[in-house]
Amino acid sequence: MSDLPISLGDVLASFEALWSPRIVTRVNDYDVRVAKVEGEHIWHAHDNTDEFFLVLDGRLLISLREATGERTVTLSRGEVFTVPKGVEHKPSAPDGARILMFEPTGTPSTGDRHEEIPAHIEVTTGH
Amino acid sequence: MSDLPISLGDVLASFEALWSPRIVTRVNDYDVRVAKVEGEHIWHAHDNTDEFFLVLDGRLLISLREATGERTVTLSRGEVFTVPKGVEHKPSAPDGARILMFEPTGTPSTGDRHEEIPAHIEVTTGH
Repeated sequence: MSDLPISLGDVLASFEALWSPRIVTRVNDYDVRVAKVEGEHIWHAHDNTDEFFLVLDGRLLISLREATGERTVTLSRGEVFTVPKGVEHKPSAPDGARILMFEPTGTPSTGDRHEEIPAHIEVTTGH
Repeated sequence: MSDLPISLGDVLASFEALWSPRIVTRVNDYDVRVAKVEGEHIWHAHDNTDEFFLVLDGRLLISLREATGERTVTLSRGEVFTVPKGVEHKPSAPDGARILMFEPTGTPSTGDRHEEIPAHIEVTTGH
């Protein structure tokens, strides 16, 4: 844990990889992660945790498969959304976005259940 | 938990009270809170939890009493800092700021140990 403030912009400027979250700081046993995203992630679900998204820049879509059917929410800059645990979801960002996430340390970016993982999607618990 | 995205700007525009956090969403047993702050909070410590700050707008100072002495970190917009559990700290914002916090649900804004609480500081676990 850094003993100095950390600029999210500096962290985001330090790498180019898409869908590859960086751990900015820890809060107890949770990570604060930031990521650059563009295009489509995959359908996946976290069986044991909610997942929090804040859009820092751009526009993030999160498709959700719920009991009532499938829908997509759109988050613009400064908007937040929590995906409840167990809900299958697929993030996407047609025009690119920068996002902040809050989730338990060790949570894999592709969840506990997921569709086949294409080459452009990394399986990671954050760097 | 809202099933639609929430604009942090809309939440912050919905109230005027200073040092009076609003709970925006929950992530497992954690709150995401936002607050408007200006002037000085009080020295306090959370014995059982770290506390995460992100500055959305303005400038936040956090004074810290550590084993090595007292110091103050300054967070500008887009900067984050985690106060480790047990560390006495005093947030202040001479020119005002809007901040986001992550902390366990039920965490009091004035910590588990604190100096005398002046009239302008509310004791709350968030609204």
